[in-house]
Amino acid sequence: MTASTRSSARILRMSQLFVRTLREDPVDAEVPSHRLLVRAGYIRRAAPGIYTWLPLGLRVLRNIEAIVREEMDGIGAQELSFPALLPREPYEATGRWTEYGANLFRLQDRKGNDYLLGPTHEEMFTLVVKDLYSSYKDLPLSIYQIQTKYRDEARPRAGLLRGREFVMKDSYSFDIDDAGLEQSYQQHRDAYVRIFDRLGFEYVVVKATSGAMGGSRSEEFLAKAAVGEDTYVSCTTCDYAANVEAVEVRAPAPVPYDDAPAAHAEQTPATPTIETLVDHLNAEHPRGDRSWTAGDTLKNVLVQLRHPSGEREALAIGVPGDREVDLKRLEGQLEPIEVEPMDEATLREHPALVKGYIGPGVLGEESASGIRYLVDPRVAEGTRWVTGADVDGSHVLDLVVGRDFAPDGTIEAADVRSGDSCPRCDDGVLEPARGIEMGHIFQLGRKYAEALDLQVLDENGKLVTVTMGSYGIGCSRAVAAVAEGTLDDIGLCWPRHIAPADVHLVAAGKDESILAAAERIAHELAGAGIEVLYDDRVGKVSPGVKFKDAELIGVPTIVVVGRGLAESGEVEVKDRASGEKTAVAADHVVSHLVDLVRR
Amino acid sequence: MTASTRSSARILRMSQLFVRTLREDPVDAEVPSHRLLVRAGYIRRAAPGIYTWLPLGLRVLRNIEAIVREEMDGIGAQELSFPALLPREPYEATGRWTEYGANLFRLQDRKGNDYLLGPTHEEMFTLVVKDLYSSYKDLPLSIYQIQTKYRDEARPRAGLLRGREFVMKDSYSFDIDDAGLEQSYQQHRDAYVRIFDRLGFEYVVVKATSGAMGGSRSEEFLAKAAVGEDTYVSCTTCDYAANVEAVEVRAPAPVPYDDAPAAHAEQTPATPTIETLVDHLNAEHPRGDRSWTAGDTLKNVLVQLRHPSGEREALAIGVPGDREVDLKRLEGQLEPIEVEPMDEATLREHPALVKGYIGPGVLGEESASGIRYLVDPRVAEGTRWVTGADVDGSHVLDLVVGRDFAPDGTIEAADVRSGDSCPRCDDGVLEPARGIEMGHIFQLGRKYAEALDLQVLDENGKLVTVTMGSYGIGCSRAVAAVAEGTLDDIGLCWPRHIAPADVHLVAAGKDESILAAAERIAHELAGAGIEVLYDDRVGKVSPGVKFKDAELIGVPTIVVVGRGLAESGEVEVKDRASGEKTAVAADHVVSHLVDLVRR
Repeated sequence: MTASTRSSARILRMSQLFVRTLREDPVDAEVPSHRLLVRAGYIRRAAPGIYTWLPLGLRVLRNIEAIVREEMDGIGAQELSFPALLPREPYEATGRWTEYGANLFRLQDRKGNDYLLGPTHEEMFTLVVKDLYSSYKDLPLSIYQIQTKYRDEARPRAGLLRGREFVMKDSYSFDIDDAGLEQSYQQHRDAYVRIFDRLGFEYVVVKATSGAMGGSRSEEFLAKAAVGEDTYVSCTTCDYAANVEAVEVRAPAPVPYDDAPAAHAEQTPATPTIETLVDHLNAEHPRGDRSWTAGDTLKNVLVQLRHPSGEREALAIGVPGDREVDLKRLEGQLEPIEVEPMDEATLREHPALVKGYIGPGVLGEESASGIRYLVDPRVAEGTRWVTGADVDGSHVLDLVVGRDFAPDGTIEAADVRSGDSCPRCDDGVLEPARGIEMGHIFQLGRKYAEALDLQVLDENGKLVTVTMGSYGIGCSRAVAAVAEGTLDDIGLCWPRHIAPADVHLVAAGKDESILAAAERIAHELAGAGIEVLYDDRVGKVSPGVKFKDAELIGVPTIVVVGRGLAESGEVEVKDRASGEKTAVAADHVVSHLVDLVRR
Repeated sequence: MTASTRSSARILRMSQLFVRTLREDPVDAEVPSHRLLVRAGYIRRAAPGIYTWLPLGLRVLRNIEAIVREEMDGIGAQELSFPALLPREPYEATGRWTEYGANLFRLQDRKGNDYLLGPTHEEMFTLVVKDLYSSYKDLPLSIYQIQTKYRDEARPRAGLLRGREFVMKDSYSFDIDDAGLEQSYQQHRDAYVRIFDRLGFEYVVVKATSGAMGGSRSEEFLAKAAVGEDTYVSCTTCDYAANVEAVEVRAPAPVPYDDAPAAHAEQTPATPTIETLVDHLNAEHPRGDRSWTAGDTLKNVLVQLRHPSGEREALAIGVPGDREVDLKRLEGQLEPIEVEPMDEATLREHPALVKGYIGPGVLGEESASGIRYLVDPRVAEGTRWVTGADVDGSHVLDLVVGRDFAPDGTIEAADVRSGDSCPRCDDGVLEPARGIEMGHIFQLGRKYAEALDLQVLDENGKLVTVTMGSYGIGCSRAVAAVAEGTLDDIGLCWPRHIAPADVHLVAAGKDESILAAAERIAHELAGAGIEVLYDDRVGKVSPGVKFKDAELIGVPTIVVVGRGLAESGEVEVKDRASGEKTAVAADHVVSHLVDLVRR
């Protein structure tokens, strides 16, 4: 039997509920959702990035999990559950034991064997399918878990938004061929759209990079939020939307350069910055048609890479002088490698590099410095640049890409700006905004299946490697993201499907009749399966405190049983989000609320 | 709204279910439940003592959790959820960071801070109550979680029965005084009785030791099982039942010894064992009234203690010569200290100890050896013994406790045997049996509240320390324990409330009519909220294989749609446990099953 024969709900009584609301903001809370989730008694911090779920918080988390579970079951995905404490070997086989670097919690058991706390479970899912399945007839397969995961974030922040212990739904699809993967991916994508629609807040689906997961096609579901850590762009004209990390600048077609003058260095004293260089050019080489601008110069930026193994490497990035190198975007391309600006001391280790006058002449794997040199796609074959001459106070003019130098490759590292051309359509421009990553779907392909030797027999009895997809939703993060997307000045403001209760019932007064009426309403609502948070506190708690608590806690419908009861036989039904109040006869309020909640 | 408006169930199709049954036993499985849970596709091993839950196993686990949750909610306990990754400090404050010894998984984060994987959460619960509550008016309070826990067991064994990552329900009560604690304890005890009754297998409630938890009153709920690691005894006459670790032998009243002869040593050549000593006594000192027996001698056994800090200590235990020292029982008294027999090398480090002839003369904290000396309660004041004289080939006779030597104290370390007197009633005797620890309830008292300074204001505005109870149920272990208690020769055999499905429907044949009828029955059952595991496999899977799988998987009701359909319009309804078969008209089978399941 399903548990569904239970039709009445439990009444949560404020007099007994394990909750304390706070009037003051917690000192360590950086974003509004974090402040309010602590103040309203949903969560408490146990350690940096590690939280305890109090009863109200746990209810919201479970409601989100239930929606995720229903939609995953709806596409035929099957739930199982892996351990969080995992042996090293499978992660060693795929290289991730090392690749995850300091983000992985590692430990040893009493016998000295290596374990990790799972940050994501591709390896384990691959191995269990290898264990159970052996034929193309067993596929397609989608399996998932809703489980606690661990990442030792360098900077845990914003409460549940970037935690070190968190709840995720991760699912994995297994197909015999690319067409199957495409179909499994699309099914998951559709399910994700339904899930995020049901959660009830604004989100956007954007193109994403695959990062440490490997694989090809990948999209993110971002909650629109000013406090989000991710920046995405969307096109004003077409439906293109992408995480800035995944924006691929449209490279200009190769420019013919037969007529270009020869490159020539010249003295440009005291021009170590783009601005001083442009002033020099406009003063010494006035052009009739247009002034020199930063976009005519080629800026070479040095960064320091830290590989997961701990090894360090210098890298040079060439971008037009009117662009900055966006380290986060660069990191997105290089994951799991970490990137930081090159410090002065390291710069001095390379005597060929003259600060402020670094040019392609000393860059590249074959060059004097030996430093790998990657350029923005705009620095295309045939384009002509003013750039450093590798001599103090000197620049080169008319330096042509492909004629005078050849970079080691291109990379998407230049910042993306409002008004940049859309990479997909012809007339749209990009608008940036910020978001919180709520879901991420990947076409992994055969990376894990190959590393762990997951093969099945095809129709012809031949062994073929399975192709996989990986699909994640941050359930605990969703609690904070939804809170962030729906809160207002006075408190939390939950969408109905995930609120910790359906109705917040306030007995506003000490009269016996008020308490009796509220009690009756609470019981009738519970009997009808409506979840009631009932503020039955008597004594020192004033109606004002109760109203403030109700606003802070954010249950979507607030019902006040107060003076109106004696005056007109009415109670007040207030919509938490709009603030709209309706007077309803006490005798009819239960059916009114049942209609409202079921609607 | 509760999720309960969903009234139809999902059909689990064997053709798609992520499961593979095995004909062979897994090589590492020691007990029947482990063998069958792996063979029937409920669980898979991920590492020693760490398991993956496949869909069928997860369903059973969730069913058990749901029963536990309902009964905890039923006594007004409130659910919350703590992290598994916990900071060192609270556990340092109570001493358990060290006390847990090698059983604790410890790790460091990227900044070098110490963390542990929670083995149990007394500290965290105490701290959260301290954070939120401050007055006697807030109490009593019971809060709980159902959560993944970790213990680095020295010997993980028997599958889920002793794992290193496992699911537990742990709850904690907080009261202002002892009477409140007694009441909270009793409420939990009653809820536990309801839970274990509903799980549907044989259990017994026994007196227990408190072990590393500290505190006073404590009882265990043991599943009766020959493979259990715990031994308990029950009285043939009264309702006394106790874990052998907790049996307290009734000490004899002090015996007057005024008339006892003086102690005297004598040559007893070649009598290093109790048996040779008794032979010597009967030969050299024949007694008219009765022969000498082992029970007349005092045997002194040396053991080696390992404290959680790693420190080692020697300990001597004196027991009547007809008893053995039960190391497990001894460990039960000394927890968290570990105990092992003293090896020859260590024995040689104490020159005062003469192997085979060790007597009280060289034992005790004040003695030549300085080794602490504890005796069985039967070695009571005034009792007279033959024991070693600390000289090779020599024993002392008429050694009287309290006159000739005084042990450092008593300890319950002698083995408990069938037929031993009941410590509670006058004529009962004890019968031992084995069990699996399923639940454990403790009156902790103020140990944790004191260590972590949990105080509230009492009625008079005075700060008082809160008193606590701690209550655990091993949910994942329960899966194995119930399996162990209900399985038979042919497979698993689940009680109805926790079975992975209500009905296992088998389409036994390839005829279109059989498949169509089975399909219709599956849909009608699902529509009525009955969970159906439907074996819809076609192709190479014979009816025989399907029957074997159904028996192995152990859903309580098996329905076979086969040849009978064409012959008589009937299908077969089989009770998995009894094997009883009933022919039911296909047209009526759905209502028949609904009645059966709802009954």
